[in-house]
Amino acid sequence: MTTPPSGIPHVVIVGGGFAGLWATRALARDGVRITLVDRRNHHLFQPLLYQVATAGLSAPDIAAPLRHILRGQRNVEVRLGEVIDIDAAARTVTLTDGDSLRYDFLLLASGATHAYFGHDAWAPHAPGLKTLDDALAIRRRLLLAFERAEAAASAEERAAWLDFAIVGGGPTGVELAGTLAEIARHTLRNEFRRIDPAEAKVRLIEAGPRVLASFPESLSARARAQLERLGVEVLTGTPVADIDADGYTLGDARVRSHTVLWAAGVAASPLGALLDAPRDRAGRVLVQPDLSVPGRAELFVAGDLASVQQDGKPVPGVAPAAKQMGAHVARVIRARLRNEPAPTFRYRDFGNLATIGRMAAVVHLGRLKLSGLPAWWFWLFIHIFFLIGFRNRLIVLIDWAWAYWSYQRHARIILGEQRPPLP
Amino acid sequence: MTTPPSGIPHVVIVGGGFAGLWATRALARDGVRITLVDRRNHHLFQPLLYQVATAGLSAPDIAAPLRHILRGQRNVEVRLGEVIDIDAAARTVTLTDGDSLRYDFLLLASGATHAYFGHDAWAPHAPGLKTLDDALAIRRRLLLAFERAEAAASAEERAAWLDFAIVGGGPTGVELAGTLAEIARHTLRNEFRRIDPAEAKVRLIEAGPRVLASFPESLSARARAQLERLGVEVLTGTPVADIDADGYTLGDARVRSHTVLWAAGVAASPLGALLDAPRDRAGRVLVQPDLSVPGRAELFVAGDLASVQQDGKPVPGVAPAAKQMGAHVARVIRARLRNEPAPTFRYRDFGNLATIGRMAAVVHLGRLKLSGLPAWWFWLFIHIFFLIGFRNRLIVLIDWAWAYWSYQRHARIILGEQRPPLP
Repeated sequence: MTTPPSGIPHVVIVGGGFAGLWATRALARDGVRITLVDRRNHHLFQPLLYQVATAGLSAPDIAAPLRHILRGQRNVEVRLGEVIDIDAAARTVTLTDGDSLRYDFLLLASGATHAYFGHDAWAPHAPGLKTLDDALAIRRRLLLAFERAEAAASAEERAAWLDFAIVGGGPTGVELAGTLAEIARHTLRNEFRRIDPAEAKVRLIEAGPRVLASFPESLSARARAQLERLGVEVLTGTPVADIDADGYTLGDARVRSHTVLWAAGVAASPLGALLDAPRDRAGRVLVQPDLSVPGRAELFVAGDLASVQQDGKPVPGVAPAAKQMGAHVARVIRARLRNEPAPTFRYRDFGNLATIGRMAAVVHLGRLKLSGLPAWWFWLFIHIFFLIGFRNRLIVLIDWAWAYWSYQRHARIILGEQRPPLP
Repeated sequence: MTTPPSGIPHVVIVGGGFAGLWATRALARDGVRITLVDRRNHHLFQPLLYQVATAGLSAPDIAAPLRHILRGQRNVEVRLGEVIDIDAAARTVTLTDGDSLRYDFLLLASGATHAYFGHDAWAPHAPGLKTLDDALAIRRRLLLAFERAEAAASAEERAAWLDFAIVGGGPTGVELAGTLAEIARHTLRNEFRRIDPAEAKVRLIEAGPRVLASFPESLSARARAQLERLGVEVLTGTPVADIDADGYTLGDARVRSHTVLWAAGVAASPLGALLDAPRDRAGRVLVQPDLSVPGRAELFVAGDLASVQQDGKPVPGVAPAAKQMGAHVARVIRARLRNEPAPTFRYRDFGNLATIGRMAAVVHLGRLKLSGLPAWWFWLFIHIFFLIGFRNRLIVLIDWAWAYWSYQRHARIILGEQRPPLP
């Protein structure tokens, strides 16, 4: 048992994503001692993860070590570790290495993972995108698929390797589909001798009636048109019936494909289940208006793991919401320490952006709706601005400028086993 | 069996390193059809591999897809695959996927791997550095060692996690030791709360009488002095007796350490053993003066897999020698096609450089001997100049400038399993 120096309240924060990191920083000048626990050594700029999966950026471009970000904040200790138990009555958190941390305040901000809605057998055949390891695994699969197509012994095999399906028409699915179409049509041009990569079929499959359902209908329609112009086949109202090693099934139709990516659903981190608290269907913890757990004034949940309703609508699982929740938990802890009433969380919606591909994006800010090139520039500068670290901003800007002019993607390196994923 | 169009001589080149790639490029305007086979999809700029292992550069910064490099050379087909058999009488090469390639000329340039001199049991405890996967595995180990030290339950465990040994005082060992000392003393400063990373012990262990044995003695001595100034403990004339999961043995002395890196020896690629040709102790093929295999005028070996003597000394296993051999094989093939006599290979030695760490390097060019800051600047610009790809040069230059001013290393991202390598 590791005990903090007596007297100073100990805040344990689980998860170094946007919610956890923003809470940690907001408590920099308070008389508390913070232990930030994460399973990974880095904060990840998740909005650009699809760029790593599609070989446009290197993994370190969008991640920074938590220790490095927080090196100057002397009231923080960063701990690489995984939480396996929470005892809310005893106020302790237990880690896999057996160590346990006693807390005065606990913030659970361990985020979300992808979910297969009861079809866990699909997972090995349709990888999802939540971590850098996921992104590198997808990059490997995408690049190897073209290699396998080039070496294919039959036309059927070749077609199966050149068939790419992305399941789920939310922002991640749209980004992956648009970028993959660009890779096939432009990036790989002239590089193969037996196949024409531009013949690759990129299909975006959405069960609901439209892509980017969180945007106004007019922007969904424009996103669809932009995807189609990039060469993506968009299927809406089309649930996937089955996925296996050899392809997928839509209704009665069977499609042979060796590359299916999953962007269809998220579930909350399993840590939420360790709390004795009500949860929604996706496993998110239903929190109080101040983001604490019912009956536990010292225990908070924020970010993608928290289910918050505002004006009858759920607060969305996006980075700005997570940052705002993290900062709010810091304010509530401060209020508790001063025996003041806790403020109520209020999400400020600054708008909604999604990128689609080269010069294609949609932006929705209040009454402003943009699409196409202006939306793309807007998206690009917002994302560079919010990246952590001056070096990262500069390098990402250079990589994008380079990619823009050359149509190239510099990270097209296959790591690990070079044989194909087993079909 | 894949057969090239009849009539045009088919050159099969195995290995896309410096020798194979330079041979391929040199044959761009000849009336031959080339198949370049590599197990990996990328050419690797091996001289900077230690920078990836020590988190200074990202993997894609020092690698480029072979297809991309060669996209404009229409007489080349790049094939991702692994050779498992060579039938020199039938002139065929067989790949793991069962396909076999019939050749008129064959160049084997599959390089070298690290060797444990009969101590293969040491391999899991003392990883070597030859591929990008090796570099990322070493990066993981180095970064996790500091994390484990921070979380260690006892002073002994902490010391064992802060003990780093590099076995082998050649260029790779010197680079790793110097850079690791800089990471411990500068990069990680202020980032830990329970350990002082500067207390890490970095030890370079060489069995022979001096480090950088391929340099003049005066430069070896200066390299040693520079290493010691950076904080490396240099042991010469000290063979390692044993390495296991818990540490290593020098003579009778046992040292507890969880991080031992292997930079002590290379062996030729196992493909050399598939030829019916004499080989040296390290498995390199003893080639004729024109780099062909005795009795096989159409079969060549180049790069680290070839053993070539010149003026009574072996041609060293360095990048410039490999490039020159590759270009020479192209000339010999051209001569054979014209029924002209084959030229004799002659290595032009442009000098020898090794970097040690921040502002520390040694350079030996003819009568010129440099060390310290001037040698370091020289090394730096030579290496940037020879990197493939404009983008890579620019990004590496920015990364180094950034690292120089900030002492930071941007790629300190732990990927894969975050638990410790089993001690």
